[in-house]
Amino acid sequence: MPDDFERMWGDLAPVGLSRASGGYFRQPFTSPERELSAWFVEQCETRGLRVETDSYGNVVAWWDVPAATGPGVLTGSHLDSVLDGGAYDGPLGVVSALAAVDLLRSRGFVPARPIGVSVFVEEEGSRFGLACLGSRLAVGSTSWSDARSLRDRDGVALGDVVEGGSSSLLSSVGTFVELHVEQGRDLVDRGAAVGVASEIWPHGRYRFEFTGAANHAGTTRMEDRADPMLTYAFTALGANKQARLAGQRATFGRVSVEPNGTNAVPSRVTAWLDARCSSDSGLRDLVAAISGQATERAGRDGTSLAVTAESVSASVSFDPALAAAVAADHGVGDWPIIATQAGHDAGVLSAAGIPTAMLFVRNPTGVSHSPLEHAEIADCLVGVSALADTLERLTR
Amino acid sequence: MPDDFERMWGDLAPVGLSRASGGYFRQPFTSPERELSAWFVEQCETRGLRVETDSYGNVVAWWDVPAATGPGVLTGSHLDSVLDGGAYDGPLGVVSALAAVDLLRSRGFVPARPIGVSVFVEEEGSRFGLACLGSRLAVGSTSWSDARSLRDRDGVALGDVVEGGSSSLLSSVGTFVELHVEQGRDLVDRGAAVGVASEIWPHGRYRFEFTGAANHAGTTRMEDRADPMLTYAFTALGANKQARLAGQRATFGRVSVEPNGTNAVPSRVTAWLDARCSSDSGLRDLVAAISGQATERAGRDGTSLAVTAESVSASVSFDPALAAAVAADHGVGDWPIIATQAGHDAGVLSAAGIPTAMLFVRNPTGVSHSPLEHAEIADCLVGVSALADTLERLTR
Repeated sequence: MPDDFERMWGDLAPVGLSRASGGYFRQPFTSPERELSAWFVEQCETRGLRVETDSYGNVVAWWDVPAATGPGVLTGSHLDSVLDGGAYDGPLGVVSALAAVDLLRSRGFVPARPIGVSVFVEEEGSRFGLACLGSRLAVGSTSWSDARSLRDRDGVALGDVVEGGSSSLLSSVGTFVELHVEQGRDLVDRGAAVGVASEIWPHGRYRFEFTGAANHAGTTRMEDRADPMLTYAFTALGANKQARLAGQRATFGRVSVEPNGTNAVPSRVTAWLDARCSSDSGLRDLVAAISGQATERAGRDGTSLAVTAESVSASVSFDPALAAAVAADHGVGDWPIIATQAGHDAGVLSAAGIPTAMLFVRNPTGVSHSPLEHAEIADCLVGVSALADTLERLTR
Repeated sequence: MPDDFERMWGDLAPVGLSRASGGYFRQPFTSPERELSAWFVEQCETRGLRVETDSYGNVVAWWDVPAATGPGVLTGSHLDSVLDGGAYDGPLGVVSALAAVDLLRSRGFVPARPIGVSVFVEEEGSRFGLACLGSRLAVGSTSWSDARSLRDRDGVALGDVVEGGSSSLLSSVGTFVELHVEQGRDLVDRGAAVGVASEIWPHGRYRFEFTGAANHAGTTRMEDRADPMLTYAFTALGANKQARLAGQRATFGRVSVEPNGTNAVPSRVTAWLDARCSSDSGLRDLVAAISGQATERAGRDGTSLAVTAESVSASVSFDPALAAAVAADHGVGDWPIIATQAGHDAGVLSAAGIPTAMLFVRNPTGVSHSPLEHAEIADCLVGVSALADTLERLTR
C-alpha cells in the first residue's frame, strides 16, 4: 500500500512543474490539468471503479459492490493548482482517496454503502476567478447561466471550454469526506500528523478598479496627476493594517496595470482583494473599512474606485457529530479538531446540505499556494490510513 | 501644402489605433509600426528622396541636389508609440519633416547643403525597455553587443528581430533638428504655437525587484508573511512624496507580480521607476532616497530588494547659439526657449556631439503618452512652417 501511494505520487510529480520555480501550473482545462484528469480516470478504471462525469468536467468513480446500498460516501479533492502552486493542495486528497480504497480492499473490507472517489474542476479559481467552481456548479449553488460567461485572462469564456448545463453527479451522495494538506502550522504546533476540520472562515474575492488619467511620466508635474497607482498602493497598505490589527486576513496578490508602460502614468490599476474573517459580519466590516479608506484616498488623488464582489463564501461549520466521530479513538488518542481560513469544495458541499468532514495532513513548512508547500510521506500515509478508517466507519 | 500635411496625417490615423481606448499601439517591429515605416519609405521615394537604412531599422532619406555639399542637415522623429499612446508623439515630427521639404520646394528654395528626413526605431523603449534605442545604436552610445540580448515581455531578443551590427547612417550629418509635440503646458501658458528646446532633464529607468515568499492568502497570519506587495506599495507612495516635495518626477507605471494569483501572497513584485530631475546630482539623490527608503521597509517586511538602472540619460543642453538662431525673428517675435523633462532622439544625437535643435508644437491638453494627447491643425502648420524656415536658414 505505501508503494501504491508513492508510485501514484511519482506519476503526478512532473505534470505542470515549472523547472524555474519548482512550482506547479495546473490551470483548469489546460494541458497539464487535463493530463491529470485523464490519469485519474485511468487509475479508477484500473481499479474497476465505475466512472461518471458531468457536463462541467467533474468526475466521480464508484466502488460498486452487490452488498452496498443506500446513499454513498464520497471522498476526493481537486487536481488544479494556483499559479506556481505546491504539489499537495488538491492532488494529496485525490491520491489518498485512491490509496484508501486500495487499503480497504487489502483489509478485505466490503462496504455496506457505496464508496466513491471524486475530482472537482477549478477549485482554486485561478482561471475563471470563482473558487470551487466545479463543486458550486455540481450542487447548483452557482447557476450555469451565471457561470458560462466567466472569462479567463485571455478572454476565453467557461462556456467555450465546457459543454455545461447540468449535473446529477452528486444525486446519490450521502456524505462527503475531503482530505487536504494543512495550509498553516496548527498541526505542527500540536504535534499531530492528522487533524479534522471544525469550520471554514467566511471569505471573499473583491475586484478593485482604480481609474485615473494616463499621462507622460516625465513632463506631467506631480501635482497635475490623477495616478491610480497611488490610490492602489495606499489601499494595499491600509488593507494589510486593518487585517493585522483585527487578527483577520487581507491580501492583494493580483494586480493588472493599464497601459503598464514605464514612462506613462497609468490610466487604470485593477487589483483583487482576498479577505477572510472569523465571522460573516467581521468580513463585511473589514471589506467596508478597506473600501471606505480607498474611496476617501481616491478623492484626494483625483481618481475613482469601483469595488465588485466576485465571490463571497459564508462561514461553514462542518457537521459536529460527524467531525467528532471521524476524530475519535485512533489508538493514539483523538485527532485535534481545528478551524481553517481556506476555502474547499468540502465547504460548498457542506453548505449545500451534504454532511461533510475534512481531514488535514500536517504541513511542516505551514506554507501553501507556493512551491514550498510540503508534507512528509510518513504523514501522508497516516492520512491514507485515517481516511480508510473513516470510510470504513461510515460504510460498515 | 496644408493639404499635404492633412493628407499624410489622415494616412497614419488608422494604423495601430485601439477602437476601445482611442490610443495607439505601435510597438517596434510589430505590424502597425512596420506599416508606418513602409509608408515613410514610400513617401520619401514619391518625393525622389534617396533612402538609406541601417542594420537596426533606422531610415534616412536625402534630398540630393547638385548644389548641395558638405555636412547635411537632418530632420525627423520616430513612428513607434508607448502602449496606448497618443497620435502626435513621434509621427508629428516625421510628417512635418516631409511637409517642410514640400514647402521648401514650393518656395523654389534650393539648399546649399543636403537635407535629410529621418525615422529612428524604438524611441519609446516600450518593447525592449531602452528608450531611444535606434538613435543610441546609430551614434554608438549603446553597443550592439549590449543591445542584441535585450528582450521584450514575450522573451523575444532584439537580435531575433533585426540583423544589427553597425550603422553609418549619420556619417554625413552635420546638424539635427527634431520637431515634436509638446508634452506639457508650457506653450499653452505662454500663448505660443511653437517653442524651441533649451535642455532635457536627466532621467532614468530603474527596475525594482521586491522578493518575498509566496504563501496562502487565507491561512497565513498577517504577522507570518513576507509580502513584497507591501514593500512595493510603500515604495510607490514614498517615491511620489519625495518627487513632489523636491519639484522633480518619480513614477511607477509598470508592475509585474508573480505568481499574480488572487489567493496567494506574491513571491515577487517587479516595478519600474521612471525618475527625472533638473540636475544630474538631483537625479542621483532622488533615486538613492527612494531606494534607501525601500530597502529600509524591506527589512521590516522580511522581503528583499534589488535595484537595477536599466537606462540613465544625463542632462542634455542643446547648442545655445543654434537654439537662439532657430528661435529668433519670425515676424511675430522670438519663440520661447523652454526646457523639457522628456527624452528624445535629439538628446542622444546632441550628447554624441552633433549640434542639435528641437522645435515643440503646442499641446492644448498638455497630456502626452495618452489618447488625450493633441495638437490643433493650425499649430501643426505653424510648426511645419517653422521647421521649413529653420532648414532654410541652416542650408542657405
